[in-house]
Amino acid sequence: MQIAIALYERFTALDAIGPYQMLGGIPDAEVVFVAERAGTVRDDSGRLALVADKTFAEVAHPDVLVVPGGPGQSDQMENAPLLDWLRTADATSTWTTSVCTGSLALAAAGLLEGRTATSHWLALGELEKLGVRPSEERVVFDGKYVTAAGVSSGIDMGLALVGRIAGDERARTVQLITEYDPQPPYDAGSPKKAPAHLVEMFREQTRFKDAPA
Amino acid sequence: MQIAIALYERFTALDAIGPYQMLGGIPDAEVVFVAERAGTVRDDSGRLALVADKTFAEVAHPDVLVVPGGPGQSDQMENAPLLDWLRTADATSTWTTSVCTGSLALAAAGLLEGRTATSHWLALGELEKLGVRPSEERVVFDGKYVTAAGVSSGIDMGLALVGRIAGDERARTVQLITEYDPQPPYDAGSPKKAPAHLVEMFREQTRFKDAPA
Repeated sequence: MQIAIALYERFTALDAIGPYQMLGGIPDAEVVFVAERAGTVRDDSGRLALVADKTFAEVAHPDVLVVPGGPGQSDQMENAPLLDWLRTADATSTWTTSVCTGSLALAAAGLLEGRTATSHWLALGELEKLGVRPSEERVVFDGKYVTAAGVSSGIDMGLALVGRIAGDERARTVQLITEYDPQPPYDAGSPKKAPAHLVEMFREQTRFKDAPA
Repeated sequence: MQIAIALYERFTALDAIGPYQMLGGIPDAEVVFVAERAGTVRDDSGRLALVADKTFAEVAHPDVLVVPGGPGQSDQMENAPLLDWLRTADATSTWTTSVCTGSLALAAAGLLEGRTATSHWLALGELEKLGVRPSEERVVFDGKYVTAAGVSSGIDMGLALVGRIAGDERARTVQLITEYDPQPPYDAGSPKKAPAHLVEMFREQTRFKDAPA
């Protein structure tokens, strides 16, 4: 079972590492970080560099593909090397997945047309403009397409996928060994729960200016 | 505010990236990945390489230090370059922190003697052997020493620290933008919640053979 996680400049770190940590618990999983060019890829803060061990061409037919989001996603919406790889990989994949604004890249590649999917809460309007039915669920399954909401939601998606691929027992072992028993010290993790003025602040600042109210 | 995250071979990825993603939301935070030698450091699966941009010597006095855990921690318990750096950095730090078995390294450096701390649930007995009062809490504050339980708990620790350092309002903005509204699809994230046979399986397999019952 080959699992490819795509990287591009200014991706968001936890978008990639959340699913990575969970999916790596699938027996015989071969997880590989891929990018247009092999080598280091910087995240959105510039403080972290991950290594893409393989190019897109070297991993053309993974069983599972994961596309993280991040500010750099904006630069990928017309970037043929990524979009072509998404289409090629999707043609034979068992699961095609994304975290956060990674779903916008899947949509740009034409893979989510008419489907239901999610994204970062600030990007749901943008997703709809790309012909996708936006969902406010944290993890959305639509056939083999699995999309997760913002950043940290990739952990929940990854764990759900472990269950689908390797069974509930295996998913529980992964949850236990990663001690994934979340206890956030605040309760502001979604626009429905956070103070309204913070939600408004982000809506005003976002690159997705027409985010739904 | 300089925040140093230590890397060593066979660390666990989410241990480092969880706090990184949260602490990076502190205004003017300068987060830097450090290691004995600058360059790539492989995680416990060997599938992921992160770049340490600086050596320990180059970042001798961070305001906050974070030590992740992972299988490779065992090789660090007598490794002078790491332990010496921990002591030097701790001498002037505002916060000295760890995730998972990173607390065993802090203990090996003599920094947790007589203190209360936590670690991965399988390592609490080992922590006690090192002269530390083990706690089953997910995030433990004891003075400036902040320790988190296994792997994913570093996210909760990171968010709690953002609150202490930059205030509750800032912590909530970080939680909202990372959409940290966890919804695990299973409820097996601690030894108290997981099926007993899974807990037993790990206790039998662990490198910490005397893990408490």
